[in-house]
Amino acid sequence: MKKLKRSARLVEMTQYLLSRPHTLIPLTTFADRYGAAKSSISEDLVIIKEVFEDEGMGELLTMAGAAGGVRFIPKIPKEQALIFAQDLCSQLQQKDRILPGGYLYMSDLLGQPSLMDEAGKIFATAFADQDIDVVMTVETKGIPLAYATGAQLNLPVVLVRRDHQVTEGSAVSINYVSGSHKSIHTMSLSRRALKEKSKVLIVDDFMKAGGTIQGMVDLLAEFEAEVAGVGVLVESGSVESEERLLHDYVSLAILTGVDSKSKEIDVSPGNYFNKR
Amino acid sequence: MKKLKRSARLVEMTQYLLSRPHTLIPLTTFADRYGAAKSSISEDLVIIKEVFEDEGMGELLTMAGAAGGVRFIPKIPKEQALIFAQDLCSQLQQKDRILPGGYLYMSDLLGQPSLMDEAGKIFATAFADQDIDVVMTVETKGIPLAYATGAQLNLPVVLVRRDHQVTEGSAVSINYVSGSHKSIHTMSLSRRALKEKSKVLIVDDFMKAGGTIQGMVDLLAEFEAEVAGVGVLVESGSVESEERLLHDYVSLAILTGVDSKSKEIDVSPGNYFNKR
Repeated sequence: MKKLKRSARLVEMTQYLLSRPHTLIPLTTFADRYGAAKSSISEDLVIIKEVFEDEGMGELLTMAGAAGGVRFIPKIPKEQALIFAQDLCSQLQQKDRILPGGYLYMSDLLGQPSLMDEAGKIFATAFADQDIDVVMTVETKGIPLAYATGAQLNLPVVLVRRDHQVTEGSAVSINYVSGSHKSIHTMSLSRRALKEKSKVLIVDDFMKAGGTIQGMVDLLAEFEAEVAGVGVLVESGSVESEERLLHDYVSLAILTGVDSKSKEIDVSPGNYFNKR
Repeated sequence: MKKLKRSARLVEMTQYLLSRPHTLIPLTTFADRYGAAKSSISEDLVIIKEVFEDEGMGELLTMAGAAGGVRFIPKIPKEQALIFAQDLCSQLQQKDRILPGGYLYMSDLLGQPSLMDEAGKIFATAFADQDIDVVMTVETKGIPLAYATGAQLNLPVVLVRRDHQVTEGSAVSINYVSGSHKSIHTMSLSRRALKEKSKVLIVDDFMKAGGTIQGMVDLLAEFEAEVAGVGVLVESGSVESEERLLHDYVSLAILTGVDSKSKEIDVSPGNYFNKR
């Protein structure tokens, strides 16, 4: 036990809370940690709460009573999320991203931990009130996004593989049809990776018709698990509505067109920003 | 510009610094942000610095002069890193991790964002003084570790693929020999993913003889890039010294033996904890 002055305590408590999102911390933890009265800790938390909320960092929920404590819920305000999405869109519109076949090079953006972190915070905001046990993605490019989301929600990440790996033990494999090419692929999940009846948030970097995500949904059925939500960074808007396999998801950007000749790329903020 | 009291300012500055590791922040940024005198900001930073250093969170470097400012360098003290490694070892020793072929199931551990984050902080500590431009890994399981390290060092992550993907544009591919099985594999890196002459920190989850990492080293040569360091979460110690392809690396745990019959797993803290 160390006695800290209020100023030092505020610094310490701030970092303690920030590194433990969605975790209930009893006031006695802080009181013991700093050798302070609970009433002083409560006053500190009022100051921290005000700054967190004013700065759009999230909510600090205090629960009274014997089992009470404080819980930090990271949340990004919609206006701040929209600025992020607009910036993402303007980066995605750079002409030199166009690859043969009308694909868009995104790996430089997906390779920025701070950008993934911000997107993860937006998904954590969008799904903050859902009852979720794990975040799931399929290799490869959605992985950093899934971890960023899992970190903010204080949840583990489950990784679906394209092939069955020896390091995964016994696994359940399914075939799925990739909607855009109508080609058949396999995905597989280790038996021990996911408990039955789990509630799963699916996260991926890109969705066209939704075949890959539908594959994950089908895989979840094999585990008697259920979908708690779907979040994608970029969705392709150039899919006819009847071709789309999935209708209930959150996207941060919509790619409506890539013109290889004129090098025009149309991308706008995703359905997360629609009025509801 | 908003006027904040010292108490609120300390909370705000703490979160601001924590979310911007290895980034120079001029004092004027804070002074403007809070409508405070630079002298007050300096006093705040003294308080924050003391807490950060007492708590083993890292260093707060202040640079005087016109181009001066403050820089947060996340660092975990060795004793705290050792506690992490010992805990990792005891988790790796759970008998039910043994898979056919003497492989060890690790995906549940790699799926915990907070554990990856801690390991990333240790690598960021180990390589804090190196001149590094990017963190590199090869898909799949090392990805969360590479991002955790990149986040702490404020560096982008470059991802080597097993196959050449249409979404990566033109790429350089090489063949490499996986040391443990002497089998030949391919890895590939998008041409635009890495600038020539880059200094690269290679991170991976597991290393046996080092064939995969040697493959990445060979790939770097194709980009005239150089290796700034190699960090692996777990190395296999059951490799004869002359078989080992790589000798200069940092490991957090060493797996010396897996006995499928007795279900005994021998694992101890890695070479990072050797006296030097």
